[in-house]
Amino acid sequence: MARMKVTVAYDGTEFAGYQIQPSGRTVQGIIQSVLQKMHKGEPISIAASGRTDAGVHAVGQVFHFDSDLSIYPDAWCKALNAMLPNDILIRKVEEVSPSFHSRFSAVSKEYHYKLLTSKQADVFKRNHMLHYSYAINVDDIKRAALFFLGTYDFTSFSSARSEVADKVRTIYALDIVEEGEQLTFQIKGSGFLYNMVRIIVGTLLEVGSGKRKPEDIQHILVGKDRSLARKTAPAHGLYLHQVNYQDKPE
Amino acid sequence: MARMKVTVAYDGTEFAGYQIQPSGRTVQGIIQSVLQKMHKGEPISIAASGRTDAGVHAVGQVFHFDSDLSIYPDAWCKALNAMLPNDILIRKVEEVSPSFHSRFSAVSKEYHYKLLTSKQADVFKRNHMLHYSYAINVDDIKRAALFFLGTYDFTSFSSARSEVADKVRTIYALDIVEEGEQLTFQIKGSGFLYNMVRIIVGTLLEVGSGKRKPEDIQHILVGKDRSLARKTAPAHGLYLHQVNYQDKPE
Repeated sequence: MARMKVTVAYDGTEFAGYQIQPSGRTVQGIIQSVLQKMHKGEPISIAASGRTDAGVHAVGQVFHFDSDLSIYPDAWCKALNAMLPNDILIRKVEEVSPSFHSRFSAVSKEYHYKLLTSKQADVFKRNHMLHYSYAINVDDIKRAALFFLGTYDFTSFSSARSEVADKVRTIYALDIVEEGEQLTFQIKGSGFLYNMVRIIVGTLLEVGSGKRKPEDIQHILVGKDRSLARKTAPAHGLYLHQVNYQDKPE
Repeated sequence: MARMKVTVAYDGTEFAGYQIQPSGRTVQGIIQSVLQKMHKGEPISIAASGRTDAGVHAVGQVFHFDSDLSIYPDAWCKALNAMLPNDILIRKVEEVSPSFHSRFSAVSKEYHYKLLTSKQADVFKRNHMLHYSYAINVDDIKRAALFFLGTYDFTSFSSARSEVADKVRTIYALDIVEEGEQLTFQIKGSGFLYNMVRIIVGTLLEVGSGKRKPEDIQHILVGKDRSLARKTAPAHGLYLHQVNYQDKPE
């Protein structure tokens, strides 16, 4: 029996989310059914670093599974990609120690949120970037972003549906990267509560549009009240970019 | 009654092609049904610069229609976009003279064909670029491309389904543009036969992979025989980039 760590990219557009459900097309459901075929009908469970919602994409989601098949990592990669639909791409398969867990061994995660700031929409990016054609003050957003750095109780920036008791998380970096008409929010943290990245981006966009001041972020954080940060940015701009593990800083 | 010229972009992925059909989702069908609603049920025909196949995209397709509604061009643009699905985007509406015809007034057309040359596929570009992970000699492709410049009978580079009698066309430019792992074929000509761009690209890829020599292009052109150029590149890498009209060189 070997434990395999898998890095996977997916286009969230046509999925009802990552996590398997009684009905609806899910990333987990499709991967598990392919693994079951490879294991002659034996059900194989995969465990991911966390869920992503419907419409949310992944460049570097990580999951693991256990298998008694003797297949080299590269051959796993090819076999899985040959059987998976083309909106899921297995990027890497590695054999890891049985103590590795995609969720509990993770030390940090990085999400990207992509904005298209052009006047006109772009039909080719409609499912992969939030089109935001309003005036936006990027300097104010950058100033506001600084207030998120550090360790805080993120109750104000999590969905009311979040069931986790401990809402303290650490944000290591929140960079705002401009490339032509693309604005990317790159956020790295110890972990993220339900909808946390999308609420942070939604609130920063309110700062960018002048509805809030950069300093307001501090008050919202201290308030620990979900009603203080009201905007959740849409799912289709969000990417789970990377999951980091000990000894694997990159 | 005014004649309106419309520049439109669409993502071809979810269309059975540009041209209206008895069944199937088409760009023309959807635009005409929106115009019919705006004209209180009166059917409005639109005439485009040409068709595009299923899966083929457009950045700058052009069509025209006649209307007795008094609406300013910018208001047309907004009204149409508000009613159209988000894989069709009206980019510009202009009032033109009644003698303007999107097809017969066109003096040249430009198509782009996009290749992703990375080792690994990209789930986010799967419908918008041809993933080509084989070794490719771009210098050979550039040398081969030069043989297309000028006026030739393009029988060898048109589909057997092409019903046009006169197969003489002029190619003004065929540029191969490299940007990181993206290779774009930019081709501008007086007009194009059915599947002509896709067969030209398919043949150039055979040159790039070493299956043919750059000089072979000349022999294929002179041969005037469709069986000489066998490969048609897939639809999803192709974009109708721009249609040019007299006095509108850009």
